[in-house]
Amino acid sequence: MLLLIPGPVATAPEVKAALAQDFAPWDNDFRAFTARLRERVLAIAGGIPGEHVALPLQGGGHFITEAAIRSFVPAGAKLLVPMTGAYAGRIDRLATEAGRVVVKLPVPSGGPVDPQAVRAALAADPTIHCIGMVYSETGSGIIHDVRAVGAVARDAGARMIVDAVSAFGALPFDIAAQPETDAIVFTTNKCLEGVPGVGFAVARIDRLKHCAGRAGSWCFDLSDLYAHTLRAGPGSSRFTPAPQVLNAFNTALDLFDAEGGRVARHARYAANMRTLYDGVVALGLRPYLPREVQGPILVNVHAPDDPAWNLQNFVDALKRRGVLISNFHNTETPTFRVGCIGAITPADMTRAVAAMGEALDELGIRTRKAA
Amino acid sequence: MLLLIPGPVATAPEVKAALAQDFAPWDNDFRAFTARLRERVLAIAGGIPGEHVALPLQGGGHFITEAAIRSFVPAGAKLLVPMTGAYAGRIDRLATEAGRVVVKLPVPSGGPVDPQAVRAALAADPTIHCIGMVYSETGSGIIHDVRAVGAVARDAGARMIVDAVSAFGALPFDIAAQPETDAIVFTTNKCLEGVPGVGFAVARIDRLKHCAGRAGSWCFDLSDLYAHTLRAGPGSSRFTPAPQVLNAFNTALDLFDAEGGRVARHARYAANMRTLYDGVVALGLRPYLPREVQGPILVNVHAPDDPAWNLQNFVDALKRRGVLISNFHNTETPTFRVGCIGAITPADMTRAVAAMGEALDELGIRTRKAA
Repeated sequence: MLLLIPGPVATAPEVKAALAQDFAPWDNDFRAFTARLRERVLAIAGGIPGEHVALPLQGGGHFITEAAIRSFVPAGAKLLVPMTGAYAGRIDRLATEAGRVVVKLPVPSGGPVDPQAVRAALAADPTIHCIGMVYSETGSGIIHDVRAVGAVARDAGARMIVDAVSAFGALPFDIAAQPETDAIVFTTNKCLEGVPGVGFAVARIDRLKHCAGRAGSWCFDLSDLYAHTLRAGPGSSRFTPAPQVLNAFNTALDLFDAEGGRVARHARYAANMRTLYDGVVALGLRPYLPREVQGPILVNVHAPDDPAWNLQNFVDALKRRGVLISNFHNTETPTFRVGCIGAITPADMTRAVAAMGEALDELGIRTRKAA
Repeated sequence: MLLLIPGPVATAPEVKAALAQDFAPWDNDFRAFTARLRERVLAIAGGIPGEHVALPLQGGGHFITEAAIRSFVPAGAKLLVPMTGAYAGRIDRLATEAGRVVVKLPVPSGGPVDPQAVRAALAADPTIHCIGMVYSETGSGIIHDVRAVGAVARDAGARMIVDAVSAFGALPFDIAAQPETDAIVFTTNKCLEGVPGVGFAVARIDRLKHCAGRAGSWCFDLSDLYAHTLRAGPGSSRFTPAPQVLNAFNTALDLFDAEGGRVARHARYAANMRTLYDGVVALGLRPYLPREVQGPILVNVHAPDDPAWNLQNFVDALKRRGVLISNFHNTETPTFRVGCIGAITPADMTRAVAAMGEALDELGIRTRKAA
């Protein structure tokens, strides 16, 4: 089965094989392993040892995002959230329920965040403490310019937290060049091609120290997690970790390095996306995003304006052909969404497009243009 | 390597094999799987469908414990915590950092919680809302009488949350017979013998509804997690789950059933414990707990009063013999701790005791009595 959902992604056989072991997390061998794994993750983010630190936290993207918000934004302080789509909406809810005050910056649907709009929002309300910024909006598939938004934050003296859950490992980020960034958060899954189960924050050490005591949650306190590594050693786990997930992630990083790192991974995903994008256009379908803002992570495609269209039936017809896509959409208008990430290649995308053509025929969908 | 740490526990080959697959969590097959898995967990807790519900949450015991405290105890309300040892101390910290007010009930070191002392504490402060009760205190190895404490809570009109992380699946619990219990929390690991990565709460549905809006955290809001299953179906995951961990857990439950369920598992662990207990006594060592209060989950053993004693050296000497125990202790006085749980048998314990004898000889430890 070809998984194009996008996330959990398809993983390599070596990654899956690395799961099938027992581990003792407090054993000195596992401590050395954990310390080395954290160094590897730090390096991918451009972190400088002693200035930045990679902190693992169990759970998916929501957990590490809530942890970063709680740890760096004081209770009652303001977080500016450019409303890029479904995942920005999640930052809004995570922050609001944690008692932070969200200031929403409207973003035109299907468009990139305008750094000048962010500048104006910060100028209009100097009490805004931090920006909560989605890098790759998995709702639409747009990549936003976190460097430009970060520069605006820097000018205004504001901080930034970057949700890079579906971006990190493929899209560029250099935390050393973005001193306004308190933390960038992501997970073992998605572009790094491990299995789900652990999130990571790469964060500034000076900010972790400065913000100690803000979280209002022991589990989600990244400052405490950092303090634990100082006290107990860089390979020590604060609580029982998910060692199988971490071991598979380490193998995934071996494959990441062997492929040529972030640049090579980005190139493969972009090739996957182009093959898919061109393929669905050739089928008469219309992608949700224009080509010039379409990111390499996932492609949404407008639902055909045909009475025979039914997303679950389409998904089922594809599944019978060995291709699995999401059975829901995160866009305002009906679409189907296809992931371009994971251990997959343009040849897989060609196969997926062929299956889509067959599935549309099977469902008797003649009108393929969008409503 | 024989893992006796206790937790993550040694898992069966079938459990490890079940990890090595990719999954699409929103696929209808996986939804059916998840719904069935939740039913299986509910049944082990004695839950009644429609009255109780099993809710999975990524992370280990700390995460699901914080979630239960946040979800059921209002901010600013009082939680009575019988201070049974290290893990009661963790409930204290989780609740306090979440803004709940902890009332500590002292418990004599190495002794069980006295239900009459709980009754007196509740009578002395009628504003106490809930009891946070450790079932198996992994610090010492004592099992506490959660039925008796629950009855006291019921009489006083207080609620109870049971931390059964190292108890559930081996020690008896029937949530239908304990209506004062808002939730019992545990994980995929420990006595159910899956790998770490997901926690579970089995909770009362009426209380989940009544307590909606209390958590102050979207991620840790069990009422929202329940509402999600109502809205999106019992197999739906609110956020990306850890599907490999869940699949391995399902296989672990197959093995649990095949063994004869909780009673058989309890019996095997008790036999493991007795073999270990008798074995270390025969080596001249002194267990931390008297035999009459020693639980079946883990055995702490007093460190020998010999200048050659060094815990890490002892652990390393055992590791060279294929036996892995913890390299730290959670008791006030120096001990070493040995887990009796996981996919291990009394024969494994006999082998472990033999390795301990050899390791003591290798380290030149002649005095084996405690200080």
